[in-house]
Amino acid sequence: MDMATVNALPYEDFVNLLGNVVEKCPIITAAVWSGRPFLNFAALEAAISEFIDALPESGKEGVLRCHPDLAGRDLRGGTLTRESREEQTGAGMDALTSAEASRVTRLNEEYKERFGFPFIICARLSDKATVLRQLSERRRNERAVERARAVEEVKKICRLRLQALVRDDAQNKL
Amino acid sequence: MDMATVNALPYEDFVNLLGNVVEKCPIITAAVWSGRPFLNFAALEAAISEFIDALPESGKEGVLRCHPDLAGRDLRGGTLTRESREEQTGAGMDALTSAEASRVTRLNEEYKERFGFPFIICARLSDKATVLRQLSERRRNERAVERARAVEEVKKICRLRLQALVRDDAQNKL
Repeated sequence: MDMATVNALPYEDFVNLLGNVVEKCPIITAAVWSGRPFLNFAALEAAISEFIDALPESGKEGVLRCHPDLAGRDLRGGTLTRESREEQTGAGMDALTSAEASRVTRLNEEYKERFGFPFIICARLSDKATVLRQLSERRRNERAVERARAVEEVKKICRLRLQALVRDDAQNKL
Repeated sequence: MDMATVNALPYEDFVNLLGNVVEKCPIITAAVWSGRPFLNFAALEAAISEFIDALPESGKEGVLRCHPDLAGRDLRGGTLTRESREEQTGAGMDALTSAEASRVTRLNEEYKERFGFPFIICARLSDKATVLRQLSERRRNERAVERARAVEEVKKICRLRLQALVRDDAQNKL
């Protein structure tokens, strides 16, 4: 889909097609529709980023809390969104050893207990070893630092989900 | 569920249980979790209202665009959320005559064309005649007036959905 097509979409189609570029937050996609037409892919991506940045801290935490655990019960139970399932399985989260799975579960719980939101990482840019290392390291961050870091990961995930749906003529790499 | 129980919920359970009090906007529920504990039902309801009020106008429109049409294809196709289905069928939206259905479809399209968001009314507080009259009348409003009106309807819907889930000791009537 090119940007001319995106810009011509009624809001219902826009939200149906792009509503999960930020996990379970169709309100964000639905809000940025107000700002069309977008000059290019980067402008659409920037509109989403700016909407998130303008949310109060509670709203940013709300975005984070709409994300599933990595290698959590939604993956095991088959209740992830399509996008999350593809990202998590791509990073090997469905192929953890029993010891790795126990460790991830324990670290996820520690992380959520400390921060009140789940550990988020752009799985498409990671492998199993990176995920495990980051989860272990980031849980020691200060709360504000880690919240900002998690939001940056949400934006990376968003960019890649958008690129799977909308042609990015600039083809920027992360 | 009483407020003490609500206040003790981890964010995952809080969002699972209350995530659709604003249609398809779990981010709002997830955000207000940051403000717990809530003194009472009214405080929880107020936190949700205040979050919506603090959104930029595009964000308020985003909330509205997450709502389905009244008597639209989601009702016919069985793809409404449970809450919306109960509300729409309660107001007789599944029992329109052929002429009424055509009229609602036409007015919904006119309304969406004019405002860029769907017609929203608290169906539990309406009947078929009221819905049809309001749809016909409100499409003539100015945009800013109608946006504010639609947000008020979202809040009425939210209050009733909350009351179905959380005990409101004050039992305020709308």
